[in-house]
Amino acid sequence: MLILNKNQIIQHVHLNEELIPIIEEAFVSLSKGSVMMPPIMRIDIKKYHGESDIKAAYIEGLDSFAIKIASGFFDNPKIGLPSSNGLMVLLDSETGIVKSVLLDEGYLTDTRTAIAGAIATKYLSNQNANTVGIIGAGIQARLQLQAIMLVRKINKITVWARDKIKANQFLDSFKDLEIDLHMASSCKELACLSEIIVTTTPSKKPLLEFDWIKKGTHITAMGSDAEHKNEIDPHMLKYCDQYVPDNQSQTSALGELHHALKKNLISSQEKFNDLGDIINDPNLGRKNKEDITICDLTGTGVQDTAIARFTFNLCKKNNLGINI
Amino acid sequence: MLILNKNQIIQHVHLNEELIPIIEEAFVSLSKGSVMMPPIMRIDIKKYHGESDIKAAYIEGLDSFAIKIASGFFDNPKIGLPSSNGLMVLLDSETGIVKSVLLDEGYLTDTRTAIAGAIATKYLSNQNANTVGIIGAGIQARLQLQAIMLVRKINKITVWARDKIKANQFLDSFKDLEIDLHMASSCKELACLSEIIVTTTPSKKPLLEFDWIKKGTHITAMGSDAEHKNEIDPHMLKYCDQYVPDNQSQTSALGELHHALKKNLISSQEKFNDLGDIINDPNLGRKNKEDITICDLTGTGVQDTAIARFTFNLCKKNNLGINI
Repeated sequence: MLILNKNQIIQHVHLNEELIPIIEEAFVSLSKGSVMMPPIMRIDIKKYHGESDIKAAYIEGLDSFAIKIASGFFDNPKIGLPSSNGLMVLLDSETGIVKSVLLDEGYLTDTRTAIAGAIATKYLSNQNANTVGIIGAGIQARLQLQAIMLVRKINKITVWARDKIKANQFLDSFKDLEIDLHMASSCKELACLSEIIVTTTPSKKPLLEFDWIKKGTHITAMGSDAEHKNEIDPHMLKYCDQYVPDNQSQTSALGELHHALKKNLISSQEKFNDLGDIINDPNLGRKNKEDITICDLTGTGVQDTAIARFTFNLCKKNNLGINI
Repeated sequence: MLILNKNQIIQHVHLNEELIPIIEEAFVSLSKGSVMMPPIMRIDIKKYHGESDIKAAYIEGLDSFAIKIASGFFDNPKIGLPSSNGLMVLLDSETGIVKSVLLDEGYLTDTRTAIAGAIATKYLSNQNANTVGIIGAGIQARLQLQAIMLVRKINKITVWARDKIKANQFLDSFKDLEIDLHMASSCKELACLSEIIVTTTPSKKPLLEFDWIKKGTHITAMGSDAEHKNEIDPHMLKYCDQYVPDNQSQTSALGELHHALKKNLISSQEKFNDLGDIINDPNLGRKNKEDITICDLTGTGVQDTAIARFTFNLCKKNNLGINI
């Protein structure tokens, strides 16, 4: 049994092109139904403004599967600790024996989430889209932007966040790139300046209105992963040209779709193509240059299984970790 | 972060009286509602006859909570491996930081499950009951019996199992005790000889009929922890004098109660006292010497949190484990 710590993982697993096909393959398995992925387990600890999510997925034919614990304790920054935490456990598919514990402290979750954003942008935004607007200024804001730059040549970045200091720090971290940097004074202004928009907040109220969105825009909404979270006006899902969930059964319970269903803007009978369907057949993706597309990411266990397997194999090859 | 391996855990945590109040307290918290315990997560890998269950519970006021992975891969014995496996992860309740990974390989699950059997027997069987019948001859058969001997003075053990060799081996492991040992040729015979009965199998069909049960018998049914498992005739739940679930919301989905509800033998409106209610007020337990009582154990996350915390504190005090 191999124990891997965060340093070992960070040194070998990077947010780069190599991970895109790994996560794409996982989404395709999920959409083909060759996956056993139970509903997400959540433990809320309201007193400490904290939650732990457990995700898991077995992808048929693979020799291992992951169970992942990801915690968000949102008062941690006040005492100088990161809000995210967690680990992944890799089990042998044939015997259930624990092959590895990956003490990534949330790093692999952050990484596979950003890669999903890159994949959504790759299949749904216009090829020549080169302006990005990021709502939020936390870790995912930065990672989503870096991930988008793997698949699109970006020349303008706009950010909006409630906390202007964090928004400035966010922009500052990209100052060495030859890219226009802009802090928007509203989400409306951000929408006006961006062909690709990513929402990365834990907002409980919509931050984006449909009227603000320019034709041809692609939006990735990745902040909502719980019933009470909602980043974009539910009407947008009705009025946009294409809505793509990472996994419809999850987004209808936890994502932006949940709110559109609750408001009866979309019928619960309606079946959308999941992201994996579009990866499998890119013709199902963006149809016209003018289309407004939305990808709703709640985070899936298959992404965890894919990145845990990748990390384990890489670290094992490099003789890293402690054998117990 | 402290990594504890199975050897360290086995050397310090034993199936003894000390654990009874620890697990009792957890059941009481659960029945008082001061617990956040999400539904069990299950990953089935049918191809390999395997399943992984994830359980978790936060008990209000405690500084840590556990998330537990327990796997059962039932073809493992064919290749010389134990079918059970797993680990527990202990997280800080205030920050979500991982405090410990307990690589117990199922040992702590086995132990806390047996202790629940001791607790059921302590509160529900007659004080002077001294004959035990065990159905099944696996690890839990042995542990349940050892646990019962912590709370009752036993002078006759009867076993029944499909596999007679395993039943013989089971009896053989108790040969050094001054106790009558008996292999029953049927479950009916076993019921006739026993005041306390424990069912410990993964059976899909009832093994015990109500007509066979003598007055005054206590039955602990601990094998069923999934929809398709069923060890006792569902009519028994209707006709017995007292039915006690470990946690009614779990037993109505996964335990013996599930089958009685499905057959409309018991109304879904009926509310039973959980084991924790009876620990909290023993007057709610057995009323008469002649009563037939049934305790339905599906295994709860609070037991895992309780034993993980106990183990962590004990091992830390003894400077065991690897700090990472």
